[in-house]
Amino acid sequence: MKNLFTLIFVFFSLTGFTQNQNFAIAIHGGAGTILPENMSPEMEKAYSAKLEEAIRAGYEILKNGGSSLDAVQKTINILEDSPLFNAGKGAVFTHDGENEMDAAIMDGNTLGAGAIAGVKTVKNPISLARKVMEASPHVMLSGKGAEQFAKEQNIELVDPSYFFTENRMNSLKKAKEEEKDQGYSPTPDFKFGTVGCVALDQNGNLAAGTSTGGMTNKKWNRIGDAPIIGAGTYANNLTCAVSGTGWGEYFIRATVAHDISALMEYKGLSAQDAAEEVIYNKMAKLGGDGGVIVLDKDGNIAFVFNTKGMYRASIDKTGKLSVAIYEK
Amino acid sequence: MKNLFTLIFVFFSLTGFTQNQNFAIAIHGGAGTILPENMSPEMEKAYSAKLEEAIRAGYEILKNGGSSLDAVQKTINILEDSPLFNAGKGAVFTHDGENEMDAAIMDGNTLGAGAIAGVKTVKNPISLARKVMEASPHVMLSGKGAEQFAKEQNIELVDPSYFFTENRMNSLKKAKEEEKDQGYSPTPDFKFGTVGCVALDQNGNLAAGTSTGGMTNKKWNRIGDAPIIGAGTYANNLTCAVSGTGWGEYFIRATVAHDISALMEYKGLSAQDAAEEVIYNKMAKLGGDGGVIVLDKDGNIAFVFNTKGMYRASIDKTGKLSVAIYEK
Repeated sequence: MKNLFTLIFVFFSLTGFTQNQNFAIAIHGGAGTILPENMSPEMEKAYSAKLEEAIRAGYEILKNGGSSLDAVQKTINILEDSPLFNAGKGAVFTHDGENEMDAAIMDGNTLGAGAIAGVKTVKNPISLARKVMEASPHVMLSGKGAEQFAKEQNIELVDPSYFFTENRMNSLKKAKEEEKDQGYSPTPDFKFGTVGCVALDQNGNLAAGTSTGGMTNKKWNRIGDAPIIGAGTYANNLTCAVSGTGWGEYFIRATVAHDISALMEYKGLSAQDAAEEVIYNKMAKLGGDGGVIVLDKDGNIAFVFNTKGMYRASIDKTGKLSVAIYEK
Repeated sequence: MKNLFTLIFVFFSLTGFTQNQNFAIAIHGGAGTILPENMSPEMEKAYSAKLEEAIRAGYEILKNGGSSLDAVQKTINILEDSPLFNAGKGAVFTHDGENEMDAAIMDGNTLGAGAIAGVKTVKNPISLARKVMEASPHVMLSGKGAEQFAKEQNIELVDPSYFFTENRMNSLKKAKEEEKDQGYSPTPDFKFGTVGCVALDQNGNLAAGTSTGGMTNKKWNRIGDAPIIGAGTYANNLTCAVSGTGWGEYFIRATVAHDISALMEYKGLSAQDAAEEVIYNKMAKLGGDGGVIVLDKDGNIAFVFNTKGMYRASIDKTGKLSVAIYEK
């Protein structure tokens, strides 16, 4: 009898059943030319602390048996409320000196999705995206109509001045100076990126969410990849959950998030291999820059980017926390 | 020697080289509950004539060595200018009695794409989408910003009253009557559908385009699948060009257009089999309705829909014209 127990113990140890949970979470806070020489120790600390705070909040929900959708929303809310990231409070300015935010959330269980584009008064765009998914017959709302829906649904609205930050206004001024020489050529302000979260809950349900202020100096009510299902955001219980960050136009053209899922579903690639194929080979070959976080249905996490850095964190299925900024 | 010529002739006949051109084109004008008993002979004739006029115009461009992008744009312009279809002139009304149009175009050669959402004064939305692709650093513009861009690019603008048609206003009134009983539940006005075109030119380049007024009675600046790259519109020279029509929310959630391409690229499915898998199995299982036209890189055409009918036409690589409305 003792031998049997020992055998069972050894079996579970080898298969990892004693160590592994069946839930996990990963986040990003933007990818780009993030170099150690441009970061003060204080800034590094501030970013790392906020990433850790956010991911721990989401992890806590998963640990208590909450849904991956709740974990994604709560985690992103914390990043949206911080001026460090280009989403919510820290959103960048458009050419006209406004803040126009995009967000999307997707439920890997039902393939339900909600997305909003170009809202100016919604404190937490990801919460509105969730409400679009759950309380409207539509997937994607935009502009004033999305704000009207937010009002009807008692989503918190704020005066546009809430989104004013000195840093972002300086970025806009700098972009406009550069524009004088080279014409209108907005590039994503990579250092201050989009935020995103992917989570797998104890019921085996995946969810993905992305929230962003888009590109500094953007014009013409431009919509980026974050609210485009299959481009910057995608989740499917058959495969994985994905959130992207980077030069949105390339993410749309390469349908990055759905392509990663398709490579897993149809070619049997791992999350890591699928993400590398799409980011390094497909998206990069079009000329794009950026990265993705991918969480597969078994809780494996991949961080893949072709930039110098990506603000990121994860708590994997062994419960291990990782927080990182640079390439290595 | 005579025998050799005969042999060569037989070879080319058998392989179809004497018959087949290397270009082809297909269009749709919406899918839905289109039943013979609800159509007068005059209406049938009007739809068929307009479909034929449009596809012949696109075909002429291809035959003369023009690009698939030009063929797609020109063909869709003709459908947009007709009040028969839910695009351009015949766009349906929103809840607020306005016309808000979406469109996208994609170049299978470069994976370049242009999309617009929610424009109210652009006579030919597909032409603006093309301009976004070629003259802006962005893929997707929306609302007033897209109209501002149109103005800067000398795209033809019209007074919103241009889009008023008695038929569409009656549809809105009817939808609002129904709403009184069942609450807000917009459904795509299937009988008057979105328009789309896929083309393959003599250089082997595929292109896809879609243009729509969206759903009758839509609210909150809803954006549908037509302008979402990978949902209602997609083109890739490696695989196929796709344009969709139907209940846009399901096309977005199932990333219909890119999924068809992915099944061809990664699993080697034919255009027909890939479209059937996505429309019959994936999209329909979510609860959606609609159809797609798919043109593969070798000029094979698939029309697949799970509705009672789809306005459609093609001129295939043998030069044969087909125009059809109903299921059989």
